Amino acid sequence: MIYLDNASTTHKKPFEVVKAVNLAITKLSSNPGRSGHDLSLKTAMKIANTRQNLCDYFNCERPEHVIFTSGCTESLNLAILGTAKAGGHVIASVFEHNSSLRPLFELEKNGIITLTIISPKYKEKITKEDIEPHIKANTYMIVSTHISNVDGSETDIENIGKLCFEKNILYLVDAAQSAGHRRIDMQKNHINFLAVAGHKGLYAIQGVGALLINGKTLPKPIKFGGTGTQSISVYQPDEAPECYESGTSATPNILSLNAGLNFVKTHEKEIEKKEKALTLYTINQLKKIDNIIIYTSEKNLNGVVAFNHKKYDSNEIADFLNSKNIYVRSGLQCAPLKHKFLGTEKTGIVRISFSYFNCKKDIDYLISALYEIK
Amino acid sequence: MIYLDNASTTHKKPFEVVKAVNLAITKLSSNPGRSGHDLSLKTAMKIANTRQNLCDYFNCERPEHVIFTSGCTESLNLAILGTAKAGGHVIASVFEHNSSLRPLFELEKNGIITLTIISPKYKEKITKEDIEPHIKANTYMIVSTHISNVDGSETDIENIGKLCFEKNILYLVDAAQSAGHRRIDMQKNHINFLAVAGHKGLYAIQGVGALLINGKTLPKPIKFGGTGTQSISVYQPDEAPECYESGTSATPNILSLNAGLNFVKTHEKEIEKKEKALTLYTINQLKKIDNIIIYTSEKNLNGVVAFNHKKYDSNEIADFLNSKNIYVRSGLQCAPLKHKFLGTEKTGIVRISFSYFNCKKDIDYLISALYEIK
Repeated sequence: MIYLDNASTTHKKPFEVVKAVNLAITKLSSNPGRSGHDLSLKTAMKIANTRQNLCDYFNCERPEHVIFTSGCTESLNLAILGTAKAGGHVIASVFEHNSSLRPLFELEKNGIITLTIISPKYKEKITKEDIEPHIKANTYMIVSTHISNVDGSETDIENIGKLCFEKNILYLVDAAQSAGHRRIDMQKNHINFLAVAGHKGLYAIQGVGALLINGKTLPKPIKFGGTGTQSISVYQPDEAPECYESGTSATPNILSLNAGLNFVKTHEKEIEKKEKALTLYTINQLKKIDNIIIYTSEKNLNGVVAFNHKKYDSNEIADFLNSKNIYVRSGLQCAPLKHKFLGTEKTGIVRISFSYFNCKKDIDYLISALYEIK
Repeated sequence: MIYLDNASTTHKKPFEVVKAVNLAITKLSSNPGRSGHDLSLKTAMKIANTRQNLCDYFNCERPEHVIFTSGCTESLNLAILGTAKAGGHVIASVFEHNSSLRPLFELEKNGIITLTIISPKYKEKITKEDIEPHIKANTYMIVSTHISNVDGSETDIENIGKLCFEKNILYLVDAAQSAGHRRIDMQKNHINFLAVAGHKGLYAIQGVGALLINGKTLPKPIKFGGTGTQSISVYQPDEAPECYESGTSATPNILSLNAGLNFVKTHEKEIEKKEKALTLYTINQLKKIDNIIIYTSEKNLNGVVAFNHKKYDSNEIADFLNSKNIYVRSGLQCAPLKHKFLGTEKTGIVRISFSYFNCKKDIDYLISALYEIK
């Protein structure tokens, strides 16, 4: 099996991650933040360590503003729905995934916000210049996909963050496809809300993500229930992180995120170097094959390569590759506006995506299969 | 270690559950319902099997109306927030956990619904007679905690379900503390929404639950994002279960729920018999100790026993037991109105709770520790 669908979820998880999950199930199965016995406290401490680890890695201001969620989708929903401002205006881009678009369009449909979706001048990068002209007096938030899950194109979060800071606009960055692949500094980039997926570049198991919050604007909770705090009250308490994390914590998932993050920190340089090299190598090899259209630019060496075959639909190519035990993603990748922007909304695209565990041989195998297509 | 805090989370998970999680991480790590390759399809099939298994076990009408959530809290939020009817009236009881109370009071605080919280005539059971007089013309939902997480007291869901059916009122049952402990038949009991926790009586790992839906009223989604369906649209699709499950499925957690449910099905009679016997034995042993007040009735043999010591606060007793390596839960158990009802809102109560893996010796150890308290 050649697994080239790591942008959907990284297939191979580091041994440390498997070990962390096993420890969580067999030795730490208790309710952290609820009961006061030693096992519950030990588990709570491990969860607190994970919070601190994420806080340090992304340079978030305060560990209590690292909110564990069920995944990046919930993180984005919390940031978008939790800060919704009646009569306000939000700017997002065609690069957005449906996990940002759908909560935003839900708010727009209900008449709560107005929404501007911008298209960038260059397909490789969304810049400050693409965004700035669309800012209105009532713009309260800008949403950016850091790295596109379709083709690896980028957003200049540094300069857009600066712009947001200057204009006093909230900045939400969807790092589903970048966290773990490259270092993100929330304070340097003036990011108010950073949404991360656990199970992709951070090598955790599925079922965990985080929303990291900087600045004074805290979202309202979107889920209500037991927090283990102020239990005498029938109203949701205000204190973070508990007010956002109603219900029993997903200890195995959270501890897998800690282990995954530690793996990333240990192999940080290697991961970046490897993914860049594999992306470039793939683009260069694809270029040699007839009838292949490549959508990923050589400027965007982000572990994702998007292409099509002129004679076939993306699903047909993916099915053919599947018959050779090569697993890729086809279709729209839940990013409809990006496909309209690329003109691929009818065919979809074939996406291959790497993790630390891929190697040059995987690409050679893929390329030789693609040569067979007539 | 004597673990008697299984109502918070079952500590020991069956070997089959650990095995299922390992399989999910090491062999099935892919994105079900997204990619079309064999691994993704194989994983999707296992998730569909889990859906069917839950559907059959709880006698839900359709497997696609079994919604996976991050836990019982999200299930209750989906049922309560997703069906909220402006100007409508909801009836709940003092037995409710904050996971029901807080979303309900949030709706009431925002002027969306009016709310009646009933107190039962008898502390052992909430009956149809406790509810019926409070029904108004605009009552659209009744919420019942099936078994109280504080003291194991019950709600007569059979007759209240019947009443709801006759009056055309939606019936939401919080089965956090009953699912897995006793069989629940959704159709027989006219339950529209059944909220279950994975990690308690169903022996799954933390981070998974389900909302099972019967009848024609489907809640609106409360979370928006990628569903792998109708990806060309920026609006949330309508089809269940996908419209409720935006984001990557928590495969390890969901497959652990399947394994946990299979364990429960295999040991069904034994679990019920054992928990009844342990509960009765504990009540009888506690009765012999001076200064102990028992809150759990002999009529409610549901694996939960609540008590206090006349001389000490519940936290002091729990701390003392912790020093003897006996793990219990003290305080309010996230059920404030139940404690006000029992008059224990200042002291809390000491709660012990069993799973299949407890035995008589655990109780003897607890009892002998309690005799030491002077």
